[in-house]
Amino acid sequence: MGFGERLEQRVQELGSPLVVGLDPHASRLPEPIAARLDDPRAALGAWGCGVVDAVQGVAVALKPQVAFFETWGAAGVGALADICAHARTRGQLVILDAKRGDIGSTAEAYARATLDDDGPMRADAVTLSPYLGPESLAPFVKRARGEKGLFVLVRTSNPGAGEWQADIAVRVADWVRQTNRELGGDPGPVGAVVGATLPGAPWRDRMPGAWFLAPGIGAQGAGPEDVQGHKRPDGGGLLAIAARGILFGDVAREGTDWQDAVSKRAAALAARFARP
Amino acid sequence: MGFGERLEQRVQELGSPLVVGLDPHASRLPEPIAARLDDPRAALGAWGCGVVDAVQGVAVALKPQVAFFETWGAAGVGALADICAHARTRGQLVILDAKRGDIGSTAEAYARATLDDDGPMRADAVTLSPYLGPESLAPFVKRARGEKGLFVLVRTSNPGAGEWQADIAVRVADWVRQTNRELGGDPGPVGAVVGATLPGAPWRDRMPGAWFLAPGIGAQGAGPEDVQGHKRPDGGGLLAIAARGILFGDVAREGTDWQDAVSKRAAALAARFARP
Repeated sequence: MGFGERLEQRVQELGSPLVVGLDPHASRLPEPIAARLDDPRAALGAWGCGVVDAVQGVAVALKPQVAFFETWGAAGVGALADICAHARTRGQLVILDAKRGDIGSTAEAYARATLDDDGPMRADAVTLSPYLGPESLAPFVKRARGEKGLFVLVRTSNPGAGEWQADIAVRVADWVRQTNRELGGDPGPVGAVVGATLPGAPWRDRMPGAWFLAPGIGAQGAGPEDVQGHKRPDGGGLLAIAARGILFGDVAREGTDWQDAVSKRAAALAARFARP
Repeated sequence: MGFGERLEQRVQELGSPLVVGLDPHASRLPEPIAARLDDPRAALGAWGCGVVDAVQGVAVALKPQVAFFETWGAAGVGALADICAHARTRGQLVILDAKRGDIGSTAEAYARATLDDDGPMRADAVTLSPYLGPESLAPFVKRARGEKGLFVLVRTSNPGAGEWQADIAVRVADWVRQTNRELGGDPGPVGAVVGATLPGAPWRDRMPGAWFLAPGIGAQGAGPEDVQGHKRPDGGGLLAIAARGILFGDVAREGTDWQDAVSKRAAALAARFARP
């Protein structure tokens, strides 16, 4: 089954498009994890695997943010591999948020490092930055002919994003549509990153069938009403990312352990975004 | 001293703008290294540190390509950290070729992971992809007010690069010039990646003082005559990258050990690009 269909199946099963980000901010990790940070691989691994377990049955996929793991060097990257392996054993999808983008043998190396079975992460999909052109995406498209997927940065909503994206985002969007058509998937395995706090309808018009990965939910402000335009006419096609709003909170006030708190926050947010 | 001035000093001392790429292609590593790959951290570390030593006095900087190290997961990232640490002890500059690009706390995490003294790599500079706008470069610019540097993808020469870069490359170039002006460096710490096999003069006109990092030398075809337009009027401002053409060869035919062969290939290429 292609990645687009696997996502479709997951969203149907769970009834909600929630994707949980894994962003290990050092200063916000739960106290029992922070206390173990003298062994960062073990501590970060325990945290990430704990989140994977806590959102089982609620999250469509996990989205580890590679940058945070990389601040711990080899230990962090090792923990990320451990978390990806654990997610696989739980049948959870992993979208590696890496925003990689390079060419030739380097692009091929990134594809192997993130997706391949003989690589360290073996994720289901990866986020990519398209500045270097279609060639930079080709090794990932090749893997999307099998079971893997990719999400290409199209249009984001951060301050100043429009300054350089404005003119090319539409062309990248056209490439997404065209590539999905060539791959024959419906929905296809090539998704688009489209910010949650900007109008989604123009982008949905350009990429009618593509999966949209929408950052900016929860702690960053966007609610279900903001992403109506991101959806397909049938209400599908949207993956709503939340990270900090689920991962971190005032556990003492919540009166429970950190994993249970993550579980409850995820369930509450998933319910808000549930398909009617 | 700012990163721009540090580069200037190195190029003056060595009389040549050669930057040696560190791209550990698994299938092309020298036999004594390949034989040790059951311990990839030790093997890749020995290889990279060996190259650092072999090009001492010839290379202005080392440019490790992060993707290749990442295919080995934690072990590869650990080896990369070991190589960066070794380069520091030898007084060599390290430009981490990572082409990172993200926003907010994630961009901050990438800056810490690549440049900061409390991070794993502590490189001198890093390559960045600008798709997410000026905001994505800000954490790196902040560090360039000290001793660090950054190289922003502006215009590359790979097939299809122009498809999406054409319209925005000039605006990214204007940002590079403007940011160097604000930082007050001459030459400034904000460099530009400009492919070696495309005409450099139009880009030099837009960024008169910036350092240009030019991939495509040696094995990829460009010679000294191709990068004349990349230079400043005084002949400076260019960093010429070569990787495969220096790293790998027919050692048996060359009748020497691999480190000596790397050293000779680097010296030969540096001489071709030497400032008159």
